[in-house]
Amino acid sequence: MTATLILMRHGESTWNKLNLFTGWVDVPLSEKGTAEASRAGELLKDNGVLPDVLHTSLLRRAITTANLALDAADRLWIPVRRSWRLNERHYGDLQGKDKKETLQTYGEDQFMLWRRSYDTPPPPISDTNEYSQAGDPRYADLGDEAPKTECLADVVARMESYLYGPIFDDLRAGKTVLVAAHGNSLRAVVKMLDGITDEGIAKVNLPTGIPLRYELDDDMKPVTAGGEYLDPDAAAAAITAVANQGR
Amino acid sequence: MTATLILMRHGESTWNKLNLFTGWVDVPLSEKGTAEASRAGELLKDNGVLPDVLHTSLLRRAITTANLALDAADRLWIPVRRSWRLNERHYGDLQGKDKKETLQTYGEDQFMLWRRSYDTPPPPISDTNEYSQAGDPRYADLGDEAPKTECLADVVARMESYLYGPIFDDLRAGKTVLVAAHGNSLRAVVKMLDGITDEGIAKVNLPTGIPLRYELDDDMKPVTAGGEYLDPDAAAAAITAVANQGR
Repeated sequence: MTATLILMRHGESTWNKLNLFTGWVDVPLSEKGTAEASRAGELLKDNGVLPDVLHTSLLRRAITTANLALDAADRLWIPVRRSWRLNERHYGDLQGKDKKETLQTYGEDQFMLWRRSYDTPPPPISDTNEYSQAGDPRYADLGDEAPKTECLADVVARMESYLYGPIFDDLRAGKTVLVAAHGNSLRAVVKMLDGITDEGIAKVNLPTGIPLRYELDDDMKPVTAGGEYLDPDAAAAAITAVANQGR
Repeated sequence: MTATLILMRHGESTWNKLNLFTGWVDVPLSEKGTAEASRAGELLKDNGVLPDVLHTSLLRRAITTANLALDAADRLWIPVRRSWRLNERHYGDLQGKDKKETLQTYGEDQFMLWRRSYDTPPPPISDTNEYSQAGDPRYADLGDEAPKTECLADVVARMESYLYGPIFDDLRAGKTVLVAAHGNSLRAVVKMLDGITDEGIAKVNLPTGIPLRYELDDDMKPVTAGGEYLDPDAAAAAITAVANQGR
């Protein structure tokens, strides 16, 4: 018996399109992202992958992606669990800033360090910054635990208890689990599942809107390292496109 | 201190529009219903009524109404609980049938008995009827408890443990609770909250898409009998329209 875990990165958001650092800023899906989400649901349905339970972040781009996908897959009625631990990486003081301008201001080395290093977070965001989450009621329970910036190592640290806790609990109960989340929270999950090194994870990117299926054995190890995309051709094309960015 | 409970009946569905008995058949919202749902969310936001937790049925017309309303109210991230106990009344063998044809076939007296009597259910639906829920995975755990027809008394009986259990638990914990459900499951809630008689409930109708707010005192009794609609004028107009139907 294997357990099935499906990772789904939200579709394009309005800020992806505008090329702004987003992080915990709660922006909606773009029109393209909306279509990607429904298409992801069609892929679930066509492949007979029927989630029994949904885990989402607290951000609307992941929640709406899940709602649209489950509607298309005729599984809108499954139980839902949400956690801030599935949120995108907090981008600190970069939230709301234009990526190209940031690159020009700080230079290539600093820019890439913030974007892709494992353990260098951007400067923390000020509580008075308009893109801060200070005072956001959804994080009120977190108190001082609420991050003001994060590197990927921080995301792995906060995802660990959630992956090995609530998500593994559902998998061990025999449920097919759908996790609708973000580029970096899902990279953290993949890093833990596949045992990828701190350096190796820099090269791993998940395409938006294409469900990634992991079959896990009795020891909760992936039967196929890296899992399998429900649309492998589209996933390969998207990953190649990302790898070629800036060349 | 009072506790706040908000009842929200889903917007118009495609079958409301076609004038078919729906019950547990899982039909989507119509375009009008979609607009009603977003408008309900605007009403929540404009009145400062911010739900901390959502309870829904297992039917997409209630789930989608809640998702659209919470999106408009900027509360899509709140925890969600779902239960079949919040489903619409099961309409038995009438599910999928045209209301006008049913009236002509069975006559006014029988028709009204099925529609508005407290304790006369329609004939049970056959498992082989295309509108049966036999084999629907969302009800698999119910086994023999899954209804094949219901009168309003049956809905009250199955709602009782859910209202006084999970919903009251959330209210007692100080949460503002949003219940997104159906005409008859919400009539059952109103009957229990306001202590309406079996005869009296026949005359109570909730309009679609207008949130109904109950403030409950320490004994969980309504401060204002019948609650208060967030758009009282629109609610009064909708209730008058229903009362005048068939005159």
